[in-house]
Amino acid sequence: MLALRVEKKGLAVREIEKPTSKNEALIRVLVSGICNTDLEIAQGYAGFRGTIGHEFVGTVEEAPDRSLIGHRVVGEINVGCGVCALCAGGDSRHCASRTVLGIHGRDGAHAEFVQLPVDNLLMVPGRIADEHAVFIEPLAAACSIKERLSFSKDTKVAVIGDGKLGLLCAQVIALTGAQLVLIGKHEDKLRIAQRLGIETQLLEEAEKRSRDFDVVIEASGAASGFGLALKLLKPRGTLVLKSTFHGSTEIDAAQIVVDEISLIGSRCGRFAPALDLLKKGAIELDSMISEEYPLSKAMYAMDRAAAPGVMKVLLRP
Amino acid sequence: MLALRVEKKGLAVREIEKPTSKNEALIRVLVSGICNTDLEIAQGYAGFRGTIGHEFVGTVEEAPDRSLIGHRVVGEINVGCGVCALCAGGDSRHCASRTVLGIHGRDGAHAEFVQLPVDNLLMVPGRIADEHAVFIEPLAAACSIKERLSFSKDTKVAVIGDGKLGLLCAQVIALTGAQLVLIGKHEDKLRIAQRLGIETQLLEEAEKRSRDFDVVIEASGAASGFGLALKLLKPRGTLVLKSTFHGSTEIDAAQIVVDEISLIGSRCGRFAPALDLLKKGAIELDSMISEEYPLSKAMYAMDRAAAPGVMKVLLRP
Repeated sequence: MLALRVEKKGLAVREIEKPTSKNEALIRVLVSGICNTDLEIAQGYAGFRGTIGHEFVGTVEEAPDRSLIGHRVVGEINVGCGVCALCAGGDSRHCASRTVLGIHGRDGAHAEFVQLPVDNLLMVPGRIADEHAVFIEPLAAACSIKERLSFSKDTKVAVIGDGKLGLLCAQVIALTGAQLVLIGKHEDKLRIAQRLGIETQLLEEAEKRSRDFDVVIEASGAASGFGLALKLLKPRGTLVLKSTFHGSTEIDAAQIVVDEISLIGSRCGRFAPALDLLKKGAIELDSMISEEYPLSKAMYAMDRAAAPGVMKVLLRP
Repeated sequence: MLALRVEKKGLAVREIEKPTSKNEALIRVLVSGICNTDLEIAQGYAGFRGTIGHEFVGTVEEAPDRSLIGHRVVGEINVGCGVCALCAGGDSRHCASRTVLGIHGRDGAHAEFVQLPVDNLLMVPGRIADEHAVFIEPLAAACSIKERLSFSKDTKVAVIGDGKLGLLCAQVIALTGAQLVLIGKHEDKLRIAQRLGIETQLLEEAEKRSRDFDVVIEASGAASGFGLALKLLKPRGTLVLKSTFHGSTEIDAAQIVVDEISLIGSRCGRFAPALDLLKKGAIELDSMISEEYPLSKAMYAMDRAAAPGVMKVLLRP
């Protein structure tokens, strides 16, 4: 089968063996999505070698549980050891021995086939299009903010970053009724949010709103977003860090202490709440899909995904 | 009156006018304590000019409310504007227009007399010694951790830093029944905690305890404490930042996101819970008092307070 691989020499589309584990489901990938994390992994982040890709929708071809065969599914990306306290508690997302689809110790989804344990799979109702279902993983990451914090109509929230993650976070927070502003650099991307009734502000304007927000969600992936977030927060406000920038970041720790800021790191979310939002059609995704390529053109697709202004790039095996 | 002043040319003991505001209480200082923040302010931190010192106990000599006169008091250090939403809500600690005793816009307590609004004062019961009452401000800062987080007997907590703040934090957390370890570099200081039945660990041993704690309280004032804290925390653990180190600190923001760490900046606390602990004799303070000097020798006392191994240095006008 074809797969997009990170190898010692770099990125390549290769013909490799189909996966063969009998303990896991074998899924024929219908569509996969290129995430910024894929671009970072291709640059060496996390030291991963193998097939990349962790956003997908596919059809189960083989499974220990035969009732799944033929169904369209999405799959949670963390696979825990199954025995540690975290896994036993039903949350493998922080299992120290976990593998992570296309990120750590497990081949990913930019391929014709992918394998995952049956427990990781969720069936996708027929009325959700493949091109929407493939957004489930980043949408779940956006929804996970609500696992950590509660929002009311009195909560003043800023989302920093008008990329895919920022737009998903903004849409999820908008549904809570909070007083939301999406802050970004790109008028064309901000317009996507504006069309959904979300207030937006250009970065240079937002910088004037010192100490104005109860919650700031950093989803820009830029280290500068961290400093801006601290500036925008009220004393005792909460900064949610959604994006992983690698390397070290300089922060003003004294300001965190003096203003008694809370900072919350937030990563993967559960798929079920995100799937509910997709079922309801509550999230606008079409305007975030930029381009689609066959898997055989994945090298070009990765270049396109890294180009300025390009949002979600999809691959179809 | 004598006062320890930070001036353009540096630190000096000066003869200055007694404060004269009729809207505030005039307090004759009995004892004041030198805090590490005083040492930092003397080095230029916060750009303060005037009398330093924010830890004191004294006797009210004049006050708009005459019933206070003659009473021994301590005083909360933040003085709000009185009209903003934060002040109206009863918490002036984050008022944007606040002054802070001996730190920002208001002369402090290393002086014969100090002034504060009557609302900032708390009467000190007679059975609490001056030398203990003077610890109320840092003890309140330690108690404030409990305003932000709850602890149970199942909570594994590490306090990093065996200085005054670390020892106070450790004593306060020990009272919650949590599973506590105090981590430090100084065997003599760790022994103070050991005598109180608190488990301790030397820094080099503690570094091996990767991902072992639910809560880590950084009270070392060293930027390296931040990195160690991240290393010691379990996924989804909470890092409480108690000490203000100035300048910027390099952090691994990706680890905060991937491990979904919460980070809580924590500064001043309310005095009432700390005064309750002093009334009960629940906190051991004598072993933390290193030396005492007359205010006229404050320059030497500041040098001593900065010397390795020296803990609390008291000044007596």
